[in-house]
Amino acid sequence: MTDITLIDAAAARLRGHARVTPLLNAPLLDAAFGRRIFIKAECLQLTGSFKFRGGWSAISALDPTTRARGVLAYSSGNHAQGVALAAQRHDIPATIIMPSDAPQVKIANTRAYGAEVILYDRATEDRDAIGARLTAERSLTLIKPFDDPQVIAGQGTTGLEIATQAAEAGIESATVITCCGGGGLTAGIALALQARARGLTVRTAEPAGFDDAARSLASGRIERNAAMTGSICDAILTPAPGNLTFPILQRLCGPGLVATDDEALHAMALAFTHLRIVLEPGGAIALAAALFRENLPDTVICTASGGNVDAETFRLALDRFTT
Amino acid sequence: MTDITLIDAAAARLRGHARVTPLLNAPLLDAAFGRRIFIKAECLQLTGSFKFRGGWSAISALDPTTRARGVLAYSSGNHAQGVALAAQRHDIPATIIMPSDAPQVKIANTRAYGAEVILYDRATEDRDAIGARLTAERSLTLIKPFDDPQVIAGQGTTGLEIATQAAEAGIESATVITCCGGGGLTAGIALALQARARGLTVRTAEPAGFDDAARSLASGRIERNAAMTGSICDAILTPAPGNLTFPILQRLCGPGLVATDDEALHAMALAFTHLRIVLEPGGAIALAAALFRENLPDTVICTASGGNVDAETFRLALDRFTT
Repeated sequence: MTDITLIDAAAARLRGHARVTPLLNAPLLDAAFGRRIFIKAECLQLTGSFKFRGGWSAISALDPTTRARGVLAYSSGNHAQGVALAAQRHDIPATIIMPSDAPQVKIANTRAYGAEVILYDRATEDRDAIGARLTAERSLTLIKPFDDPQVIAGQGTTGLEIATQAAEAGIESATVITCCGGGGLTAGIALALQARARGLTVRTAEPAGFDDAARSLASGRIERNAAMTGSICDAILTPAPGNLTFPILQRLCGPGLVATDDEALHAMALAFTHLRIVLEPGGAIALAAALFRENLPDTVICTASGGNVDAETFRLALDRFTT
Repeated sequence: MTDITLIDAAAARLRGHARVTPLLNAPLLDAAFGRRIFIKAECLQLTGSFKFRGGWSAISALDPTTRARGVLAYSSGNHAQGVALAAQRHDIPATIIMPSDAPQVKIANTRAYGAEVILYDRATEDRDAIGARLTAERSLTLIKPFDDPQVIAGQGTTGLEIATQAAEAGIESATVITCCGGGGLTAGIALALQARARGLTVRTAEPAGFDDAARSLASGRIERNAAMTGSICDAILTPAPGNLTFPILQRLCGPGLVATDDEALHAMALAFTHLRIVLEPGGAIALAAALFRENLPDTVICTASGGNVDAETFRLALDRFTT
């Protein structure tokens, strides 16, 4: 089980390897929206998302003999790149199973981080069967995207940094809004803040129509999304909260927030203008909630969890929401 | 005269007010260009450029009685915003004289930071006469954009951070490339590194055709640009190096580098993809030189000095240099 001890240990292993990302804010944005909005800019993390933390944490926690045989991950996006670079820097092989229709740039980047990419056809092939076969043949260790204690601990180091940076900024009380997919980042941050910054309480943000975490928090049991496509927030479209992450969310998080794809694009444009950072839609959903939802406190901290966006989508945000 | 003592004192005054910006890098960018490239991301500074440092340094160094009467600056861009916010946070009035054809968003932002903006017609009115009259009538203190010891000291705090962050990253030897307009940032960084990181040596980067610093360094005397328009790198188009900054550049900097507007746009696109930061053309010129010039060492650090770019110019970079 992930707890503050495991998060502290992950932080010690990440030191000097992952980046301490800045907590940004913009006076003109605050003035325009009537609250203080701080942004934990994980888009500036290595590989462009917080996923490098979890990948490094999990890989560095393996015993050396197991680790040397290599790791495997399923991902079409940020987790793939995070695990690939973490493996490369541990000098061990990484095998990443990606759908053959994943964006070419993500496949190319994952390969460029030194991973062997194995493509499969979503329509005709069984990803889990391919993974199981490879894991057995090569004695690889599967690095799950969120439902793993060491992955949650790695993402939780984001929360340790938020606690320190909020204290430095004089923030004693705030709502921390997280971009929530499977709940690894949210659970990790919630555990870290419970231990280190009791005035900071966590709420999830999700794309409208894919609010499995919000509905699960409301009903008290794991609820699933009806579909896995239909939002531009691809990075955080997961079927349901995890078996490990959901009990943590349930214990520590307030009601879930939702924002639309349009609001995510609008948040990307405002981040471009006021914060000079590049966000992907899924990485902007917490900022969107911070900007456009009512009944939030005077001070809000949101994760900007990723910035791996293609030019076409970014152009859409600029075209629609800048002058 | 600015020296390391003055820079250290400026750093003490800036602490908790200016942002310590991160030193970023991107493994895939390094691999593609065959050298290690670190980026000091001053686009993430308050007001979107390093100019806030100089503005804060100069204003905070004034004696309280003088300061309380207010400050004045001439600027159509980043210096205006830096001085305006620094004045607002000192709770003193700022008067900024801007050309009436300056971009509306820059005028609006400067006003939003609490400054009184006085517009003048470049064709028919004399900016200096307006400034002199206002300075006398209101007993304002002029905050120059670069040729002022306390402004140079403020910009030099960027160099102190580079020295610390380079040491943390294990960098003992590197060329530091600065985006160079009037030379305030370059001079400040050069002084800081001379005192704190002798293995880091500074070179200027300028837009092709507006290479007054490079030509001045080559000839040994202050050379002027033939024109003040004709490059998209508006933030760093200055007539000539300053009387205070040039002797420092001459003493401490290597030969000046030049990059084209196209290379600046290309650097902006690569920063979008690999670093997830937003750069304006003038703020990308050092990165452009780091990427596209030959005969540079294995490790280069460049300033990304500003990110105040309109969507139209940014779109141009995406359209031309992303896939």
